[in-house]
Amino acid sequence: MATLCRPAVSVPEFVITMEQTLDLARSVHADHPQLGLALRLIENTGVQKRHILQPIEETLRHPGFEARNALYEAEAKARVPAVIYRALDDAGLRTADIDLIIYVSCTGFMMPSMTAWMINTMDFSSDTRQLPIAQLGCAAGGAAINRAHDFCTAYPDANALIVCCEFCSLCYQPTDLGVGNLLSNGLFGDGLAAAVVRGQGGTGMALERNGSYLVPDTEDWIAYRVRATGFHFMLDKRVPTTMEPLAPALRSLAAQHGWDASELDFYIIHAGGPRILDDLSRILGVPSEAFRFSRATLAEYGNIASAVVLDALRRLFDEGSPVDSARGLLAGFGPGITAEISVGRWVLRGTCRAPAIPHSRSGAIGRRP
Amino acid sequence: MATLCRPAVSVPEFVITMEQTLDLARSVHADHPQLGLALRLIENTGVQKRHILQPIEETLRHPGFEARNALYEAEAKARVPAVIYRALDDAGLRTADIDLIIYVSCTGFMMPSMTAWMINTMDFSSDTRQLPIAQLGCAAGGAAINRAHDFCTAYPDANALIVCCEFCSLCYQPTDLGVGNLLSNGLFGDGLAAAVVRGQGGTGMALERNGSYLVPDTEDWIAYRVRATGFHFMLDKRVPTTMEPLAPALRSLAAQHGWDASELDFYIIHAGGPRILDDLSRILGVPSEAFRFSRATLAEYGNIASAVVLDALRRLFDEGSPVDSARGLLAGFGPGITAEISVGRWVLRGTCRAPAIPHSRSGAIGRRP
Repeated sequence: MATLCRPAVSVPEFVITMEQTLDLARSVHADHPQLGLALRLIENTGVQKRHILQPIEETLRHPGFEARNALYEAEAKARVPAVIYRALDDAGLRTADIDLIIYVSCTGFMMPSMTAWMINTMDFSSDTRQLPIAQLGCAAGGAAINRAHDFCTAYPDANALIVCCEFCSLCYQPTDLGVGNLLSNGLFGDGLAAAVVRGQGGTGMALERNGSYLVPDTEDWIAYRVRATGFHFMLDKRVPTTMEPLAPALRSLAAQHGWDASELDFYIIHAGGPRILDDLSRILGVPSEAFRFSRATLAEYGNIASAVVLDALRRLFDEGSPVDSARGLLAGFGPGITAEISVGRWVLRGTCRAPAIPHSRSGAIGRRP
Repeated sequence: MATLCRPAVSVPEFVITMEQTLDLARSVHADHPQLGLALRLIENTGVQKRHILQPIEETLRHPGFEARNALYEAEAKARVPAVIYRALDDAGLRTADIDLIIYVSCTGFMMPSMTAWMINTMDFSSDTRQLPIAQLGCAAGGAAINRAHDFCTAYPDANALIVCCEFCSLCYQPTDLGVGNLLSNGLFGDGLAAAVVRGQGGTGMALERNGSYLVPDTEDWIAYRVRATGFHFMLDKRVPTTMEPLAPALRSLAAQHGWDASELDFYIIHAGGPRILDDLSRILGVPSEAFRFSRATLAEYGNIASAVVLDALRRLFDEGSPVDSARGLLAGFGPGITAEISVGRWVLRGTCRAPAIPHSRSGAIGRRP
């Protein structure tokens, strides 16, 4: 049984509060005809503060796509190893125990991907499989969990490492002045997360079933425009209404598992924004409090894209509330509009340290002797 | 048993011959101090012709990253459906039978990815899983096959669709004047391929084992520089020597399967260039003729990146030579430097048409009723 172990999360050292964000919007966009609306939307996000890679003065400058992407690469290499080592430590594994690395990030582009650098630099085996995903946006955290689940289902003794690295501040585009862009500038934050899915053993969420759902004909609602200045984020005003068509997909997946999505013990939901969380709890008929982990991520870090679901899950671990066999649902939402959903039970196994002798690899194929 | 069915391949209508390529190099780079070397390298590729999206005059113009990426999107949407329908037809399946779409392409960037457009436009189920991969370059064809294999191992009744869409001519950078770039300008072509991996049934290569290998400390050998002008391809002169460190990984994977990599019945190898194929056949001790499918792809289409392995496999199908249970090896190579390898046996099942009644889906999880 594939078990999603405790995520490790890291946010950069520079902080911008909501008040600072509002002040900035007032000064930078003083003449914007919809400034009042943008300020109200930002106030309603519930984002109390966000963490960003650079001081705000630097963040607001656009040094060109090439320089930004170079900064992405340098910062990813500087910050990714620490969250990986903590995630491995929490899962009781070492780099050599990992069979698959799923690296997801939509805020910078590298080829070869970070997976090659990680294998070279961090003592992963040279035959570790690499799965970099750049095009699933905020849904990629859920997708990474689901593909790791599939992999450990195929190879029950294998372990997968998930890394989400999102530097949303590097996609700030000073020339994008739509209300959706102003809102995004106050909503997204930077953050990194890593977690291990263990094929055998481990404490956390045992992944039992997963699924994906694309809301028909919403491709333009969340999208990048790819320009010489980099990725330009486009957010349609209809996005906050997506829980109406998406909630049935969550219900359906739970029902296939014999569960009622309204009566589960824990919920880890992508904190795309406050309306997403409010609507989903109302439609599913679960108390607002059930989404407290996602709300805390949103309030303290903002929308950190694919890393949200891992950060919210980390908060569930920190609370320590789930009893053994507690039933839960995890869902990431992103461009498409796509939902990546999984359901599973909490497993407590005391310590999740691996034995000193490497565990059996008989089910993991393709490893070099 | 996951079976890789007959690929469908398509190349654009504009053709450039090696003579035209050499003439162009002579006229455009008349003053280049290493023109003679570049011409010799291009002559040695064995690429007799390539197919490209636009007439050569258009191809040589750079209209900006945004316009190029917009052209990528328009051309992908215009050309992808036809190869998919042919691949589905050859596998005896319909769009509704597909559980996972793996879309690989390193020559354009979209978010949402083409997978969302395909699901919306081509009558795939809304709960089809989406796996877009942009960062594995030429190795992505092999990676897609291997991840499809893993998926069908996890869910034995599931079917995965692989789509490789590579418009390498859209990465032509007129300002890149290194010898490696001049060579690349004469080596890469445009092409699309699609193939189905059926969890049950189907005629083709039954995928039995897969693996990945990263040659240590070669990240810079094949890489993109991401600039305002788009993706700039960097090719190190050491790349042709990579078969020395990679061949043992192929040997090792075959050996884990109880097979001798030198004595298999068919070989589908990424045609990165002629030296790759020559060295690998020499090191493995197999006759040059064993790589005839890859050589034909290289001669007729050039290096079409991730689509090479599917095109070479299509040529094996066309030749019709494999007997039932023939043992084969398939390997994609790309940035990292990464090899994605698989071994399996040929299965002949007469017709591979699906029954009129949809086949059982009990093993495929997460589908909506």
